Amino acid sequence: MNDRLGKVRKIMSEKALDGLIITGRANTYYLSGFSGSTSYLLIGREKAWLVVDFRYTIQAKNQVFEGIEVVEHADSFYATLDGILAEEGMGVIGFDGNQLTYSEFERFKTKLPHVRRLEDIGHAIDLLRIRKDEGEIEAIAQAVKLGDQVFEQILKVIKPGMTESELAAEIEYRMRKLGASGPSFATIVAAGERSAMCHAVPTENKLKPGDALVLDFGVIYRHYCSDMTRTIFIGDPGEEMKKIYRIVLDAQLAALEHLHSGMKASDADKVARDIIARAGYGAHFGHSLGHGVGIEIHEEPRLSVKSEDILQDGMVFSVEPGIYVEGLGGVRIEDMVVLVDGKPRNLTGSTKDMIIL
Amino acid sequence: MNDRLGKVRKIMSEKALDGLIITGRANTYYLSGFSGSTSYLLIGREKAWLVVDFRYTIQAKNQVFEGIEVVEHADSFYATLDGILAEEGMGVIGFDGNQLTYSEFERFKTKLPHVRRLEDIGHAIDLLRIRKDEGEIEAIAQAVKLGDQVFEQILKVIKPGMTESELAAEIEYRMRKLGASGPSFATIVAAGERSAMCHAVPTENKLKPGDALVLDFGVIYRHYCSDMTRTIFIGDPGEEMKKIYRIVLDAQLAALEHLHSGMKASDADKVARDIIARAGYGAHFGHSLGHGVGIEIHEEPRLSVKSEDILQDGMVFSVEPGIYVEGLGGVRIEDMVVLVDGKPRNLTGSTKDMIIL
Repeated sequence: MNDRLGKVRKIMSEKALDGLIITGRANTYYLSGFSGSTSYLLIGREKAWLVVDFRYTIQAKNQVFEGIEVVEHADSFYATLDGILAEEGMGVIGFDGNQLTYSEFERFKTKLPHVRRLEDIGHAIDLLRIRKDEGEIEAIAQAVKLGDQVFEQILKVIKPGMTESELAAEIEYRMRKLGASGPSFATIVAAGERSAMCHAVPTENKLKPGDALVLDFGVIYRHYCSDMTRTIFIGDPGEEMKKIYRIVLDAQLAALEHLHSGMKASDADKVARDIIARAGYGAHFGHSLGHGVGIEIHEEPRLSVKSEDILQDGMVFSVEPGIYVEGLGGVRIEDMVVLVDGKPRNLTGSTKDMIIL
Repeated sequence: MNDRLGKVRKIMSEKALDGLIITGRANTYYLSGFSGSTSYLLIGREKAWLVVDFRYTIQAKNQVFEGIEVVEHADSFYATLDGILAEEGMGVIGFDGNQLTYSEFERFKTKLPHVRRLEDIGHAIDLLRIRKDEGEIEAIAQAVKLGDQVFEQILKVIKPGMTESELAAEIEYRMRKLGASGPSFATIVAAGERSAMCHAVPTENKLKPGDALVLDFGVIYRHYCSDMTRTIFIGDPGEEMKKIYRIVLDAQLAALEHLHSGMKASDADKVARDIIARAGYGAHFGHSLGHGVGIEIHEEPRLSVKSEDILQDGMVFSVEPGIYVEGLGGVRIEDMVVLVDGKPRNLTGSTKDMIIL
């Protein structure tokens, strides 16, 4: 793991920084191995310190990578951090500004008097995480597999009369029993007309015959996320919904087929978007094709119309076109893919054949 | 709910702000009723707008309070926001800086050219939320009650040989089945020596006779959180752990007994801390006595040594002393309390008698 610290020190060197203070949870885990919810990771040119409070000292000592010293703060995080800055003569400090709140940034300015200059290098740190190494891909693949197992089990559970909330509870229970540490985001279960809301929160509404049912969920396994969506039908949903399903599936398969390292992420989006537009539903695919997945459920790269990302080997992301018609329903189909040797490997194994229960 | 907008407009007026841009989820829910994960709530002196993207338009229209217009952005959030600022002549804008990231703050400066000045008023907004109204107290009381029901059910499930993870899965499953929308934080199940880690993540370790078992969990119900901790024993844990249990319980009961509106939050902490210190475990109670609970699991007030908060009617908070001995184990006992008519009402009903399974 020390090459991660090496890479981040290369960025520090390029930007002439004496040190970095990392506060974002995902960045902290990536760069230090510590998974607790509160800490300040201070990375110097040669040394590194993880400052924690009483609650996390034992855990931190068990988790941190070699070369990182765990420091339990005595009175305040800031006093401890500033003491290290003073002792080491560090004054020009980078930070992950897409994680740090503005208020905390202001506190850095007043409570760390040895800081002479603060520089937001959050985006550079995100880019470090954008290409996954073998261990990360393995963890993600396992997380995706757990999601497939949950889907297989849940198909046997779904019945008309169940509420969306009950079904979400069953999904999250099964992922935990299969070994996941939890859901990677709030499970989406949206039935009938509510399936047209792509970020629907499960309700007490009951599943009924003819409903489209969007199931969008993911697990966290060994600190890495998975994400998948399947849309199934509770009995015959009628011709238009079946047509929509076929269009979304065509769009998804075409996007997957065209993926390769070196292409623009926006072009992948375009492949799916064009198919949906040609079928007359262009106005009903309002979100982007996909997003990177890793320690965070949404990270770089972005597969969207405006994205300037170039897809590369080691990137792991979702491919999830959808069509949403208010008053009728929606369909979304989502797999997770990793690019290896220039080509996509689909990590998701669940069937995409139309399922009518 | 419009008195909330009225109160926030009073702050705007005092600070001579033309408008506020709110991005934090809890603040957005509190001030607009919208519970989705992405939006910009722009509050002017007389009008208010919730800017969302395609994914949330339907939900937002269903949820927002009267007097708030839902605007689906066409091309970018910033262009839409800046257009409204221009049209309404708003230039001096407050924001919730304890929620907004530094990077987003920088984007506000470049992508909202009609903003002349930005002012962080996050703390003032937190203080708006610190005293709960009747509807909020009712929602929180229900959430706490769900937690009690989960605890009652889970006592029948706990057996030696189960893993911490399995038990966490059972806890979260039951809360969902009872109607909670999910856990209010990652459920803590820590057995044996691991009970000395107050923020332990559940592992595959199996429960064994003699273990102390810390169960710290909460639910979200109607967007409000609960939080409770009980420590039970899987068979006889030995004399020291039983002694520790009694000390923690004494400390908790004494703190509860002394609570009243108008007192310093730090004095409540001191009551519990003194009892634990006199019993010889002062160095082993490393966290604060409690924290406010509401839309967020941790919010104002803070019941800690350094807190400057004064406890007042309508405040809802946890009371949770603990003793943690590395290599032996830990005990924490946590209830949730609301101050009404100057006095505490304990919302948590679960027994605190020592339970040895």
